[in-house]
Parts: sequence; C-alpha cells; structure tokens
Amino acid sequence: MALVVQKYGGSSVADAESIKRVAKRIAESKRAGNDVVVVVSAMGDTTDELIDLAQQISPVPPQREMDILLTAGERISMSLLAMAINNLGVKAKSFTGQQAGVITDAVHGRARIVDVVPARIRETVEKGSVAIVAGFQGVTQGTNDVTTLGRGGSDTTAVALAAGLGADVCEIYSDVDGVFTADPRIVPTARKIDQITYEEMLEMAASGAKVLVLRCVEYARRYGVPIHVRSSFTNKDGTIVSSSLSRTRADGSEEEPMEAPIISGVAHDRSEAKITVVGVPDVPGTAARLFEVVAQADANIDMIVQNVSVAATGLTDISFTLPEQDGPTTMAALTAVQGEIGFDSLQYDDQVGKLSLVGAGMKSHPGVSAKLFGALRDAGINIEMISTSEIRISVVTRADSLDDAVRAVHAAFDLDGESEAVVYAGTGR
Amino acid sequence: MALVVQKYGGSSVADAESIKRVAKRIAESKRAGNDVVVVVSAMGDTTDELIDLAQQISPVPPQREMDILLTAGERISMSLLAMAINNLGVKAKSFTGQQAGVITDAVHGRARIVDVVPARIRETVEKGSVAIVAGFQGVTQGTNDVTTLGRGGSDTTAVALAAGLGADVCEIYSDVDGVFTADPRIVPTARKIDQITYEEMLEMAASGAKVLVLRCVEYARRYGVPIHVRSSFTNKDGTIVSSSLSRTRADGSEEEPMEAPIISGVAHDRSEAKITVVGVPDVPGTAARLFEVVAQADANIDMIVQNVSVAATGLTDISFTLPEQDGPTTMAALTAVQGEIGFDSLQYDDQVGKLSLVGAGMKSHPGVSAKLFGALRDAGINIEMISTSEIRISVVTRADSLDDAVRAVHAAFDLDGESEAVVYAGTGR
Repeated sequence: MALVVQKYGGSSVADAESIKRVAKRIAESKRAGNDVVVVVSAMGDTTDELIDLAQQISPVPPQREMDILLTAGERISMSLLAMAINNLGVKAKSFTGQQAGVITDAVHGRARIVDVVPARIRETVEKGSVAIVAGFQGVTQGTNDVTTLGRGGSDTTAVALAAGLGADVCEIYSDVDGVFTADPRIVPTARKIDQITYEEMLEMAASGAKVLVLRCVEYARRYGVPIHVRSSFTNKDGTIVSSSLSRTRADGSEEEPMEAPIISGVAHDRSEAKITVVGVPDVPGTAARLFEVVAQADANIDMIVQNVSVAATGLTDISFTLPEQDGPTTMAALTAVQGEIGFDSLQYDDQVGKLSLVGAGMKSHPGVSAKLFGALRDAGINIEMISTSEIRISVVTRADSLDDAVRAVHAAFDLDGESEAVVYAGTGR
Repeated sequence: MALVVQKYGGSSVADAESIKRVAKRIAESKRAGNDVVVVVSAMGDTTDELIDLAQQISPVPPQREMDILLTAGERISMSLLAMAINNLGVKAKSFTGQQAGVITDAVHGRARIVDVVPARIRETVEKGSVAIVAGFQGVTQGTNDVTTLGRGGSDTTAVALAAGLGADVCEIYSDVDGVFTADPRIVPTARKIDQITYEEMLEMAASGAKVLVLRCVEYARRYGVPIHVRSSFTNKDGTIVSSSLSRTRADGSEEEPMEAPIISGVAHDRSEAKITVVGVPDVPGTAARLFEVVAQADANIDMIVQNVSVAATGLTDISFTLPEQDGPTTMAALTAVQGEIGFDSLQYDDQVGKLSLVGAGMKSHPGVSAKLFGALRDAGINIEMISTSEIRISVVTRADSLDDAVRAVHAAFDLDGESEAVVYAGTGR
C-alpha cells in the first residue's frame, strides 16, 4: 500500500463536472489500496475574479488582505472536492494550509515554507479517509496570519506535504501528459520524456519549461520526493522526476539502470530582457559594484557576458539578461549610479529569446556544443550570448527566431518522436 | 473615546460600491475618535451561490465541508472591506473567526459560541487599527475545525465580540431604520421604536420580528451589551436595545427614567403550523408522553392548548404549534405511537398565523388583553389559540386574516406614527 500525494490544478477543477471527474480518479486510487492526500488549487478563474474585485476596491490593496482574499478560492474548491468524494462512498475531509501544518515565513504574497507539520493529515489518512489540502497557502508561526506561496504555490505545497509525510510519490496533475523534449506547441513532434533527474528538470524549469516551477523541483530534490507529472484527462503514465533513471521490466523486476540518453530536451524562454552597459571602465571592482546595484534592485540576473576590453580605451561592455518585469527598476537603479561608476550608456532590449539544451554529461561530450552551434548556423540564426553549466547550454537569440531555433536544435539531436504530441485545451496553473 | 462594535449584513456589502460606502462610514466613526471593531457577513448572494455549487456536487454534502465552503464568503467580504478602509487612509486588518478567538462547539452548521478570546482584536484596536472580523463563523477547540453559527450568526458574532471586548455599544446595521411597532410592509404607519428592553425585544424576536434573531438578543441580555439597531443607508438613530429605558436631554444630562410606554409593538409570524391530536385519553402521563415523542422528533413547540375533557368519553383534544419545517417529521413520529398512546387521529394545519402584542407590565394592566380581543372581534377575526407571558399576549388566527389582525391591533393600541415608515430595497441577513 502506497502513500500518494496528488495535486490538481485549477483547470482540473474548473467547474462542478470537472470536480466530479477528479473525485472519481481520487476514489479509484483510494480503492486500489493507496493512502491518498490531495492538494488542490482554486477553481479555474476564481483567483482572477477575486483579483478583479480587489482592484475595484483599491489600487494598492495591503498584501496581507490580498492573501486572505485569495485563499478563499482554495476553500471553495477543497470543500467541494471533499463533498464529491464523499458522494462516491469514499470518506474525505478537507484542510486549510494552517490545519495541514504548512508553516511559512511572513512574506505575504510570496511566502516560503519553513516547516510542514502534517499531524492531522497523517491521522486522517490513518483513519482511512482521503485528506484534501488547500494548495498555495500557509500560515505564519505565532501570529497565525494567512499567507500565499506565490506562483506555482500549489505544486510546492504538494511536494512539501509529500516530503513531510514520507509519501512514495507526488503526482502533479495538469492538462499536459508530462514533460516534453520541447514545447509541443512549437515542435509538434516533441516526445514525452518518461524519466528525468531532478538536476535536468531543474535546468529545464529554470530555462523556461513551464510544466513544473523551479522551487517545487528544488524542494523535491532536497527531500528526495519522486514527482510524477501527468495528465488528469488520461490514465497514461507521465514523466517521473527522481534522483536517478531506472527501468522496471514488465514482470516488475528491476533492470540494470540503462545509460541515460544524453539529451533530455530543449527549453525556451521569452520572458527575459537584455541590458547592456556600454563603456564600463575596466578596473577591478567595477563589475562587482554594478551587480551590487542590480541586486539591490531585487533583480534575478540570468546570463552575463563581458566583452574583451579594448586596450586603447580601457573600456568594456557588460551585457546581462534578467526577467523582463525587473527591467524598469533595474534600468532606473543603474541610471542613478552612472556618474559614480562612470559608464557611457545603457541599452535595453526585450526582443531576446533564450534556448537551452538540457542533458546529463554534457561537459564530457564536447561534440554537443559543436552540434548545437552548427544546427543554429545551418538555420541561419545568430547567437548573441552563450552560457553553460554541467548539464545545460543556453544561447540568446532574437525573439522572432526562437521558434525556428528550437525546431532546428530539436531535430539535430534526434529528439523528434514518431507521432504528434497531444495538447489539451487550457493551461494548468 | 468609545469602543464600538459594528455589524454589517450581506446587503450592506453586496458589491464593490457598497463596500466602499460602508468603509467610509467606518472610517468616519474611527476618525470621530472611536475604537472600531467591525463584524461583516458574506457579500449579497455569495452564500446562496456557494450552496448552489454544493448542490451540483452532492445531494447530501457533509456539514463539516459545507462550513468550510460557506466561510469562504466572509473571507472575501472581510478582506475587501479592510482594503477599502486602508484605501481611505485608515488602518484596518481582517480576521477570521478563529483569529478573532470565536470558539464554538462542534455542531457544524449551527454551532454555538462557547467562548470568545479576542486578544488579537484587542491588540489590533489598541495599535490604532480597525479590526474587521468574519461573522457567522468560529472554530472548535482542540481540533481547530471551522464551524458556522447558523441563521443570524453574524449578529451573534457581533454581540459576543462586544461582550468579550467590553464594548460600549454593538451597532447592528441593516437595510431598515430600526425596530418598528409592526412590520412596515403590513402597517405603513408603523413607528420606529427608539428604545426597547432586552425582554421585550426577546418577545418581539421570538414572535416573528425579523430585525434581530433571538439568540443574539439572548446573548446581549446575558452580558448586558447595549445593541443599536440602525440603517447603513442613513445617519439616523435607530433603536437602542438595553436593560432599561432612559432618556438624555438635548444638553446631554440624564433625565429621570420616564415611565415606559406599556406596549412596544405588534409582531407576527407566518412560519408556524398547528397540529391537533384528537381524542387523547385524559389520564395522567399521556400529555407528557405525547410531548416526549415530539421532543424526540427535535421539534420546537411554541403554543399548547388542551381542551376541557368531555366527561362522558374521558377524551380530550390537544393542539400545539411548531415551526412548519418540523411538521412532517413530527407528524410521522406521532403516527408511529398512535397505538401506544391511543388517540383517535391527527390534524395538520399550516394555514395559521400568529400575532403577538409585546410590552412591559402587561400582566399588571388587565385591560390590555380585553382591548386586544375586542379589536380582533371588531375586525371580525376569529382567535384559535391564546398564550400569554409576563410581557406578551399571542393569538393564533387564520393565515389569511393575519395582516388585518396586525393592522387592527396596531391601531387599537395607538401605535400608528404620523408618517409612513421608510422601507429600503433588499433584506438584511
């Protein structure tokens, strides 16, 4: 008997019919002999509707009150889901983040989990009930204030609970079949990946793959929680994210771990912008001061490139990418220190795209980067920046040639599947 | 500086505009130097919409889950109201029933308050903020399960908080100007009552006056909390419910308590039914057994009349009234013991109406009942049952003559005001 944590996103519980469908799936899992804990997001558009209401009331609502408002959404979906499961003859009880023991810091709107004390959830499951837990929310220690976890919060709740309960697997249900070798909307022949390691999934998520958020994968890796990314619309196996790749024979016996395929997939990201600081004095400490200013503006820098200094002038150019939304404040912060640092000018460019090739053992296969650059050259795509890690190579291109770049690289590394990937309507959250 | 608890019903916070209007009123009260605690119901139709959703999911939702679902409503209204007040430059924070320390028993759907520990509310107010508290909800001790208080729950929350905080007054805002001498929809010349004692208000509420629920008045009397029933649409004084009647001169000095007007008002109730048990053996213990059965069916009996026994047969008839909704189960329970008790038959009648005349010192003014019966006789209205208390006389009539009865009695006791009462659109909850 396994202990399974299942997470259903807003699109899976968008209306009464969807809730009943999900309830059936949960009841089946319970009847198959599993202990089941379910994490659920707010129904479909609830969150957007509540944000709308808040904006009618106040242009700058206090974040503490926003959190109270938004957590009403999961209250509705979780109690309705519990009702639907009970209606199928399977016992179920719903719990708020607080009741489930999800303790966070006090940063309203994007709180981080500091502890999970799921005593009530454990007790509920041991008594034979399904426990439904509100995703996306927690409570501060001491003051008992309600917090929300920000983007991807429900996935993080699910993984944190799975870790706290020592669950066998955390199943993340959405409207896609799993993690793909590329976005099927761009590469129709992209293949579903059966297994992937935390490290590669981290790189995929950090590089723009939207199926799992970074912090959720980070949490899973830290506590060794296997994640099964799958669709709530089919019974097909999805993608297993775990610490190592292994295969099981049809008779259930373990095979020797196969040598992992080197390349996992191609991720892309359109949400970044590039800032170039032109004419920076090439003296020690200048770059440090520059990025100190950027850090104080709370921007998350991704790639950095420094040109070779021109000997005659002693000046160099420094380019870096960052999330587009951090662009304006960062530009303002840099402008404010132009005199102090003594650079010539700033250039801002939000028409960039980033392609990342992710796979194990990339550094030990020097042919990989050569093949990547060759594929882009053959497709006539210019590379503006390059960065690499142990298991990833990223390049920045013009935004409007990003799709072509993804297709070219996907084909060059033989990632294309035999059939077209199925894409369902709607998007998970 | 006074500590004021204000309660706003669903119709007062039905949409963004209404919430802003109420916020303004709260901010004014705060700026006038008061410490303000606000209890708020769910927005307009929210509760009905949530109940609709639940019914789409399950015909018999577990009551625990219904409570979680319904309490989403106050979460939305309380956080939006806090945002609106902050937006006016007055600090405000919202709190759930749990955060406000409203402890209840575990009877989901109609929990009773067992304790109020408003430490956080007190602290919030002392720091100069307005505290917004979710009405209608509480939490069980130990298990921390969310409960709802049932009908009139928000009023009860307000009075309980006022008691726990030692507030100077509990203001109950709705869409009517106060308590009237009769329902203005039936008697357009009904007068607003300026002051009324707890006891008379209890009788009014128990007799069908809907402006305050019985349990809220009971709670207020027990803890000596003065209630001010008033409209959220005007600034007029409403009705003060307290332990004694007194008047203050225009210069603020206290006058001697005036002799209270004997008659407070005329209440009516259409929600009862009458059951007559025909041919009951008139031997000791039979009536006791009969009402034991009724009590086991969980019916709240109101009035009881036993006819004089007919000597020749040794049989008598017993009639009693009870809430219509308890009718079917009570009839079934009685039918089941017909053989045991040995009565002839049962009659069920839901076409009855009840009129109650409420006022202090009624027993010591014997002319009151004579005048009441005379007024009904002159209006050609037949009386089917009579019951009296220290401060109330109730009669049962045919339902279709109840309105005429109310008007006749209201006029006979000179309760008519000089102008027509103002009735606002919508109804509070």
